[in-house]
Amino acid sequence: MSTATPAPRTFVDPTMLVDDACAAALQASARLALLAPARRADLLDAIAAALDAAGPDLVPIAMAESRLTQVRLTGEVGRASGQLRLMANVIRQGAYLGVTIDEADANLTPPRPDLRRMMIPLGPVAVFAASNFPFAFSVLGNDTAAALAAGCPVVAKPNPGHPRLSQAVIAVAQGALAQANAPKGMLTLIDSSLQAGIDLVRDDRIEAVGFTGSQRGGLALAKIAADRPRPIPFFGELGSINPIVVTAEALVARRSSIVEGFIGSFTLGAGQFCTKPGLLIAPVDSELREALRTGLAQAPDQAMLTDNIRDAFHHGLSLVADTAVVTPIHVGHHVPETNTVTPSLYAVSATDIVQHPHLLDECFGPTALLVEYAGEDDLRVLLEALPGVLAAGVQAQGDESMLPVVLSELTARAGRVIFNEWPTGVAVTWAMQHGGPFPAATRPESTSVGAYAIDRFMRAVTWQSIPDALLPQPLQHANPLQVPRRVNGVQH
Amino acid sequence: MSTATPAPRTFVDPTMLVDDACAAALQASARLALLAPARRADLLDAIAAALDAAGPDLVPIAMAESRLTQVRLTGEVGRASGQLRLMANVIRQGAYLGVTIDEADANLTPPRPDLRRMMIPLGPVAVFAASNFPFAFSVLGNDTAAALAAGCPVVAKPNPGHPRLSQAVIAVAQGALAQANAPKGMLTLIDSSLQAGIDLVRDDRIEAVGFTGSQRGGLALAKIAADRPRPIPFFGELGSINPIVVTAEALVARRSSIVEGFIGSFTLGAGQFCTKPGLLIAPVDSELREALRTGLAQAPDQAMLTDNIRDAFHHGLSLVADTAVVTPIHVGHHVPETNTVTPSLYAVSATDIVQHPHLLDECFGPTALLVEYAGEDDLRVLLEALPGVLAAGVQAQGDESMLPVVLSELTARAGRVIFNEWPTGVAVTWAMQHGGPFPAATRPESTSVGAYAIDRFMRAVTWQSIPDALLPQPLQHANPLQVPRRVNGVQH
Repeated sequence: MSTATPAPRTFVDPTMLVDDACAAALQASARLALLAPARRADLLDAIAAALDAAGPDLVPIAMAESRLTQVRLTGEVGRASGQLRLMANVIRQGAYLGVTIDEADANLTPPRPDLRRMMIPLGPVAVFAASNFPFAFSVLGNDTAAALAAGCPVVAKPNPGHPRLSQAVIAVAQGALAQANAPKGMLTLIDSSLQAGIDLVRDDRIEAVGFTGSQRGGLALAKIAADRPRPIPFFGELGSINPIVVTAEALVARRSSIVEGFIGSFTLGAGQFCTKPGLLIAPVDSELREALRTGLAQAPDQAMLTDNIRDAFHHGLSLVADTAVVTPIHVGHHVPETNTVTPSLYAVSATDIVQHPHLLDECFGPTALLVEYAGEDDLRVLLEALPGVLAAGVQAQGDESMLPVVLSELTARAGRVIFNEWPTGVAVTWAMQHGGPFPAATRPESTSVGAYAIDRFMRAVTWQSIPDALLPQPLQHANPLQVPRRVNGVQH
Repeated sequence: MSTATPAPRTFVDPTMLVDDACAAALQASARLALLAPARRADLLDAIAAALDAAGPDLVPIAMAESRLTQVRLTGEVGRASGQLRLMANVIRQGAYLGVTIDEADANLTPPRPDLRRMMIPLGPVAVFAASNFPFAFSVLGNDTAAALAAGCPVVAKPNPGHPRLSQAVIAVAQGALAQANAPKGMLTLIDSSLQAGIDLVRDDRIEAVGFTGSQRGGLALAKIAADRPRPIPFFGELGSINPIVVTAEALVARRSSIVEGFIGSFTLGAGQFCTKPGLLIAPVDSELREALRTGLAQAPDQAMLTDNIRDAFHHGLSLVADTAVVTPIHVGHHVPETNTVTPSLYAVSATDIVQHPHLLDECFGPTALLVEYAGEDDLRVLLEALPGVLAAGVQAQGDESMLPVVLSELTARAGRVIFNEWPTGVAVTWAMQHGGPFPAATRPESTSVGAYAIDRFMRAVTWQSIPDALLPQPLQHANPLQVPRRVNGVQH
């Protein structure tokens, strides 16, 4: 028996030219759309199994490219495969089709024909991968899982932060698909260049775009999508400042645990989460400042994903620090020897931040603002000035008289509202909403995480008086796939 | 007893300045969103009842402004009140909220918090009224019914074709709302000028736009909505060419009934329907040409909605007639004495129309094209060149071998696919889809008619670990409103 360590597994680079990838996607489109949902679900499960199996080979590549830890990345593989499996369950369950049937009724005025409505896939989807989740929000992340589940081929644009990992992950997925005899071309990869991304959004064969990344990049691509001769939907999940409001009562009762929770959340993953709490909105309180200062003094060095991201972080930080109304609580530093950073925290008053709206822009990395309010009026003016966000929270005791108003103002601006927990950590489940009013996302109604992420890549069609044999199976009288249906207004 | 005819009812002009209307809408927004769905449903029913009651006073105003007949307009009042009542039923039923609950589960990795997701209203909505349905697609039409049902205040922009009717209709609705003690400002009217419309879409208090009208006007407003500092969703239902494919078998079996049905559908309402069949795609057949010519010779004169629309129709018609590859089947005329027009029909080959894509643009009014194909290959090339449409149909016997391909190609481009019926006539019901891929609509996934029209004016929010008493009622543990809910992945 040999005990030699096996050679590291190598992956064939699957990168294609944009034109070839779009041609392959278009060709796969009709075949993929015709697959029964259960068959597509099997394909998603096959990709998930292959990803889990390849995890030990993929994680080292991800570590080298992203500077994230083995523990974090191993967990993320499980998250990514879990997303694929959730989507498989969603399409097996069948409610996502929204099947709605109104049977013909000659007694109505005017008489009603037989009408059968169902969601169908949009066609080839471009997916732009994020930097900060090399597995879960990357080329085989949420958007890809949702689009494939919907029945849309995916052309994935890798993030330049982890090109080798992206190639390896797509190679793994393509291997699983080939083995399962899936439609060829249903999942392809292009190169990570800016130009390739632009060409992809402009390509007439692409029917929708899923994007996770910076506001600047997202808005530029959104404009390209809107300015095409045939505009297409652009689902951008952009940056977000994610405010947390602390009530006076909660501060008195739980100051130290709030400080601990906040520091843990805004420095998690070196602050490189779109749900990082960027604003802690709390009553003026010198003890809070002191506790935050003390807590941050012990914060460890952390590596950022790439040198570019670290440089952008320092630039953003300097814009905050150079604002006259801002005072430092704790100033972090960059350790050139280890190429790591430590977190920073600044303070500003609620009245001042309203006058300096650039402080409400996201700064991607381990920094946040303590926003101090003097009373309820002060707080209310601030809440009304907040931009759209992915998540917003309160730290409260629960019986404060102002709490309903605070929750209502936060709900008006957020995709997710949180009570006594922190926004980092986004459960992949039915009830998740990861999106929000502009500028957090380009389409306020949609989510990029959870079961309803699939809705983005479908549109409705109504079949009128079509003979049963010519109808898609979910619409046929016998309901052979046993999908949930609303018939004559009543859900079955 | 007096037998004198009562004086015609007069209506107070409710027109407001854009700024005032938006301020009123914003103020109404929070109150309206907080109303229980059943209470909002009562308000919609109250408007519907008031509209029905005022019908006899409103129809003469509509006749004077639109040149449509009393029968047609009286029917349309019923359609408009029916739409309001359908929306009331939709929100009473509660499924539109999409309530989805995942209960906390500490045994999952990572542990899952309590997550409760529901749709909430977007806020004030601008509604741009169409010219061709003075009641059903106008200031109190589909878009207004859907937005109010969602809980969004509406600022309505009247169509310049029927300003007096718009004022009267909104006055009737406002009267009903005032009597029902509804939130003030939930439904307002601005003037019909182009500039008022532009100002409305630009106003930062407006959160979404519903539009029915021309492609040119719609795309210009869509651009304004997208270019705002804070872009908002623009739901435009634009023009559509609505092709009908006739198989060789159907033509042989039912030539005369197809001719009769087609002429009836494309000339209905002087061709001023967005679902007018603009293309009859049929095998080359001299008897078909002859039957169409004979049928059209008997077509009566019809008045068009306004002089502007009639002039635009003649301009569009001249672009068709002046295309070298087009031959006339029947050339209509304008009768200056009665200010009426008669329908026109031109013929073109499938191979030629693909080379002249301007012939695939909608021409609003009583005209259509007979597109003649020589065989299946010819037909397939044409189908692949068709733009996005609201509706598409086939006239077939049902067992043609090419039928599945034809239906599949039409489905890929249409919001509604019809078998052996005609596209004019859009049932207001659960299963209707009135929308389609660009350029038929600006958002392919949405509908402007039927139960799901409400979805356009809502967005999702997830409440995480919020104490029961602070949750919106539909999310509370006891489910006091008894709405359908999906709990831990299972629909209840």
